[in-house]
Amino acid sequence: MTPNRIYNFNPGPAALPLEVLEEIQDNFLNFKQSGMSITEISHRSKEFDEVINDAVVRTKRLMNLGDDFEVLFIQGGASMQFCMIPMNFLPAGKSADYVDTGTWSTKAIKEAQLQGKSINIVASSSDKNYCYIPKNIPFNDNAEFVHLTSNNTIKGTQWAEFPETNDVPIFCDMSSDIMSRPLDVSKFGLMYAGAQKNVGPAGVCLVIIRKDMLARVPDALPTMLKYTTYAAKNSLYNTPPCFAVYTVQLVLKWLEETVGGLEKMAAMNRKKAQLLYDIFDNSQFYRATAEPDSRSQMNVTFRLPNEELEQQFIRGALENGLGGLKGHRSVGGCRASIYNAVSLEAVAALTDFMAAYEKENG
Amino acid sequence: MTPNRIYNFNPGPAALPLEVLEEIQDNFLNFKQSGMSITEISHRSKEFDEVINDAVVRTKRLMNLGDDFEVLFIQGGASMQFCMIPMNFLPAGKSADYVDTGTWSTKAIKEAQLQGKSINIVASSSDKNYCYIPKNIPFNDNAEFVHLTSNNTIKGTQWAEFPETNDVPIFCDMSSDIMSRPLDVSKFGLMYAGAQKNVGPAGVCLVIIRKDMLARVPDALPTMLKYTTYAAKNSLYNTPPCFAVYTVQLVLKWLEETVGGLEKMAAMNRKKAQLLYDIFDNSQFYRATAEPDSRSQMNVTFRLPNEELEQQFIRGALENGLGGLKGHRSVGGCRASIYNAVSLEAVAALTDFMAAYEKENG
Repeated sequence: MTPNRIYNFNPGPAALPLEVLEEIQDNFLNFKQSGMSITEISHRSKEFDEVINDAVVRTKRLMNLGDDFEVLFIQGGASMQFCMIPMNFLPAGKSADYVDTGTWSTKAIKEAQLQGKSINIVASSSDKNYCYIPKNIPFNDNAEFVHLTSNNTIKGTQWAEFPETNDVPIFCDMSSDIMSRPLDVSKFGLMYAGAQKNVGPAGVCLVIIRKDMLARVPDALPTMLKYTTYAAKNSLYNTPPCFAVYTVQLVLKWLEETVGGLEKMAAMNRKKAQLLYDIFDNSQFYRATAEPDSRSQMNVTFRLPNEELEQQFIRGALENGLGGLKGHRSVGGCRASIYNAVSLEAVAALTDFMAAYEKENG
Repeated sequence: MTPNRIYNFNPGPAALPLEVLEEIQDNFLNFKQSGMSITEISHRSKEFDEVINDAVVRTKRLMNLGDDFEVLFIQGGASMQFCMIPMNFLPAGKSADYVDTGTWSTKAIKEAQLQGKSINIVASSSDKNYCYIPKNIPFNDNAEFVHLTSNNTIKGTQWAEFPETNDVPIFCDMSSDIMSRPLDVSKFGLMYAGAQKNVGPAGVCLVIIRKDMLARVPDALPTMLKYTTYAAKNSLYNTPPCFAVYTVQLVLKWLEETVGGLEKMAAMNRKKAQLLYDIFDNSQFYRATAEPDSRSQMNVTFRLPNEELEQQFIRGALENGLGGLKGHRSVGGCRASIYNAVSLEAVAALTDFMAAYEKENG
């Protein structure tokens, strides 16, 4: 462990690569010899242009996106996307399919309904407290889009593969697993991710949109609420969240140059998750909450025999430099969020602690 | 001048107090002994609660706000407020008064009109290219609110005093002069400011709203677009832009503890502006663009005898460690933005350079 640092299993905002934090720190008073901090330079300067352009180019390269996609930076988190998506893509007389895998998809559904939009909830795992990802979903051929949440941070579930939707574009909230694995991007019309889990700090949402979707955006929407505004101005219609975009750029550089791309990242993520899931599969003490074929490789949710043991576990872990292991307040229990920037070393330290704790209390 | 730093006259994002930047840098890998960066801690942690609560309390204390005001942090900048204000406060059958003092107020007007809202443009200085602030404005008694822009960063104009509006609450975009001077807050129903000029970095908008205004907000709006969502959850309905809020908190601490409050800040700002305006009033070489009684104490806009001399001036200044003096691309010329964090020393260095440049080229 680095001195004065802990192993950070927070669900978001979450761990960032140490080398990214150090680069920010080193240059914080004098960005690229400008004599100013990154927080003080103009968003219209050549220095910032390089930052945002590099973030766009790296996103495209990492995710293997063709010229048919635009990469945008929008404020307001995924929650703002829940409202912008139906506003931009559901005109009167059209409808969309939504799959409800809990919490975030439930919120996305609510925001579409608040606007009086026509949507079909074509599948839901609410019958089993969202502990699984639905299969064999009856998608509608005439839907404008299919909305999915790729990973549920709270329930610890994740789509292992994305479903066949008969060429209807998938609009996907990837906040908690974007760039954790390679994807077949041809299925998607829109991918979005609040940056604060896998690609940066809070304060910016990465939005990847297929260009043909932009033609569907109505002109008369408020300027800040239509995707065309951001696409037309390289996300610089108004002042963007410069520091957040800069941090995202550095995380993407780390992903490309230090990790070596999404294939390598995915292999590392599988290994990290396996270390934890192996414990559950060989223990009467720890119990995974998600069904095996729906388990998340990003958020590993689990229970101990009782709440007292859980609370003592979370406290004891923190005393051993393992932070952020408390389950979401809505479900309780424990959760280890093991996003891209959480190292194998951190996960190994956690599994060591878990083994010792079971031995003592099992 | 601090080594490796310049005097920063950028219009926004703009100069921040050096002691704020140094505090961020010093604690960047380990925030409050958490073993995590401010960019890695949970927005639901006690550490972040202290940050956001302190920012709220300091805003109230600095601006002398009573318990009838809420302090909110919203993403999307002032541009998002241009759209949220009519959406929240102009139901069918009601109208509002807008004063057009250029650029930002023009955009605010456009966003209200885009939504088909009923507004009256009760005054405009467009007849003289927005070089003055209108007087004797015929406000409507039955307006829901009066919308003003307190300072125009591009034209270099500022309301020296706010007008009498017959008890109609003023909604004011204060992005470029918030906390630069004390105010009689009883006139205002809503004050908002993109943080990146006077109170922080880009990525957060400070919104101060009188509580009785919240009762007017319709329930059926999208969650992220109604003020009540932010007021009900202390701006923590979803993940806020944590780093930007933290930086704002440190700037407010500097304003209170180092500067000594808004009276002292205003005295300093008057002195800085006077140093520059004195030059224009005694020079045939430099010419201020705003009318004397409408001059901004934040953005000092001026012209030289010709564009070639202006370009050479801007280049020469930068070579002497004086950055950001180019006028906005829409108007040309020169501009010195002298927000709170720009020191008297910086302004004196600029006036010295201006005197020498005039001597050489005048």
